[in-house]
Amino acid sequence: MSLAIEVLPSDVDVALDLLSDALTCPTFDEATFRIELDAQIANLKEEDDEILDYGFRKLRERFFGVHPFAIASDGRIADLEQLSRLDVVAHFERLVTASNVVLAVSGDFDRANLQARLQPLLESGITTKPFKVDQTPNYPGPAETVNVVEVMDREQAVVLQAYPDVGIKDERYAVGEMLNELFSGMSSRLFERVREDKGMAYYVGSSRVVGLHSSMFVFYAGTHPSQAPEVIIEIDAEIARVAAGKVTEEELARCRTRLKAARPMGRQTIGARAMHAAINLTYELPLADDAEHAEKLDGIDATAMAEFAKEFFDVERQVRMIVQPA
Amino acid sequence: MSLAIEVLPSDVDVALDLLSDALTCPTFDEATFRIELDAQIANLKEEDDEILDYGFRKLRERFFGVHPFAIASDGRIADLEQLSRLDVVAHFERLVTASNVVLAVSGDFDRANLQARLQPLLESGITTKPFKVDQTPNYPGPAETVNVVEVMDREQAVVLQAYPDVGIKDERYAVGEMLNELFSGMSSRLFERVREDKGMAYYVGSSRVVGLHSSMFVFYAGTHPSQAPEVIIEIDAEIARVAAGKVTEEELARCRTRLKAARPMGRQTIGARAMHAAINLTYELPLADDAEHAEKLDGIDATAMAEFAKEFFDVERQVRMIVQPA
Repeated sequence: MSLAIEVLPSDVDVALDLLSDALTCPTFDEATFRIELDAQIANLKEEDDEILDYGFRKLRERFFGVHPFAIASDGRIADLEQLSRLDVVAHFERLVTASNVVLAVSGDFDRANLQARLQPLLESGITTKPFKVDQTPNYPGPAETVNVVEVMDREQAVVLQAYPDVGIKDERYAVGEMLNELFSGMSSRLFERVREDKGMAYYVGSSRVVGLHSSMFVFYAGTHPSQAPEVIIEIDAEIARVAAGKVTEEELARCRTRLKAARPMGRQTIGARAMHAAINLTYELPLADDAEHAEKLDGIDATAMAEFAKEFFDVERQVRMIVQPA
Repeated sequence: MSLAIEVLPSDVDVALDLLSDALTCPTFDEATFRIELDAQIANLKEEDDEILDYGFRKLRERFFGVHPFAIASDGRIADLEQLSRLDVVAHFERLVTASNVVLAVSGDFDRANLQARLQPLLESGITTKPFKVDQTPNYPGPAETVNVVEVMDREQAVVLQAYPDVGIKDERYAVGEMLNELFSGMSSRLFERVREDKGMAYYVGSSRVVGLHSSMFVFYAGTHPSQAPEVIIEIDAEIARVAAGKVTEEELARCRTRLKAARPMGRQTIGARAMHAAINLTYELPLADDAEHAEKLDGIDATAMAEFAKEFFDVERQVRMIVQPA
């Protein structure tokens, strides 16, 4: 859970008052709760009109099964319909306790003044009861291959192919980043093959649903329904190429450059800078980790990529889903 | 047309070489042209799977008729299918001429060095033949009311209601901005009425398709199909309230604050800063126009909002479109 406030320096007192109120005395008004609940349900229904969102939701469910990651952060309509104001209050009280709060400030502010104002909030405003750490076990991925077709009346079809992936705390997390970069973007071999050589697919790439210890690596493509089988052949061929250690030095260099450049580029706004600090503190990662990250990337070669691919992009634990017209 | 390159300071020479090549000796390879053309057509087909994108496309066509603004910048499938490589070359040659080029640089760069490198490009690299200014006449909006229903098999329905609007060069452009702000966002009266009091609509707000002299102001909402008529009643009631001069001081103050804050917030990245400068130069607006803009906003009261609403939100020239399941 995160709260973020972005204001002009002259309004910092207002921002601190709002933040304090939100952390120490939220009212959770029943009428507001209902409105937000209805809106969240409405948003989920709206998302289900979009073929890629719909496919991703169905894929998560099939991939993670009973593990909580089966459900995205917006929740599930059936669960929301059961949710009461008291559930939300209880969850808030579990999360907002001094030992579980990370506060990041970025931009044009007076450090001494801000610290003096924040100290009482953090020291006595917020409860200090111990934070109950989540005990959900790690998820190793599905026990067996899943192949499903979901019917949806659209012009396009969507292909999704998912595998278990390492979490943020894993040493090989950066290898996953390199692979995700390798399969994504308009200069990726996969994109070139699918789009330029075959003239198919509206988009193709990869994505990760990332947890501290359990994650999912997803290949996805939007394509003409008649071309879905060919897109799958291309995805599988690309996986096989990586597993055979055939990623070129040029590809590795491009992935490294893009991943290194993405970090400072993604932190140009003060909001993004504060969020980066807050996330790294929450995950117990070093705050200024760009150099360390760059070093990790430089150490990843075609062999490391192949090992990752062979271990994780495993047909035995693969979930493949095609969403297409009847 | 705009070209943008964002690089680390150490790579500025590479960026300048690429930019020079793009401006002075693009090859327009036939195979690449075909791939990009196919991809653009595929993207348009993909957009048509999304109800709001589809609705907006159909609305533009109905609103602007034979005026070129009927077509979004990505073009139309039928036109693209007729397009040849030579058409693109001719268009490029028309646009890229010294008197029609604006170049903006932002970030960490050495001004003297960059100017020395750019001077030859701008002075002799680019052709100097006169730029033929577009002569398309202004568009005053539709001659009569249009009411249409488009059928699309979705969970939700989309309501779109469009009116003529002033262009960027008009003195009242900022009044349009205030109105657009008034109808948008989660604290707008329209959003509160529709979502909080009636519990309907997934989203509701307004948007503008903006030209130098011809524009379109659009109210839009995503809602349950059964609630579309009620959402229209709310939109019309909100227009009537504004036209009756009943926008409150509090609402005006909120719109002004948000519009003023949006400018510096939107220019936090170097890319956005360069784009702002390039656009203002292209439109012949002052480069640092925040103070002037703030002054304009401060001068807009409920009467100015009412006058704008009465003149432009005119039932006689309104295009209303509902996209809904059969």
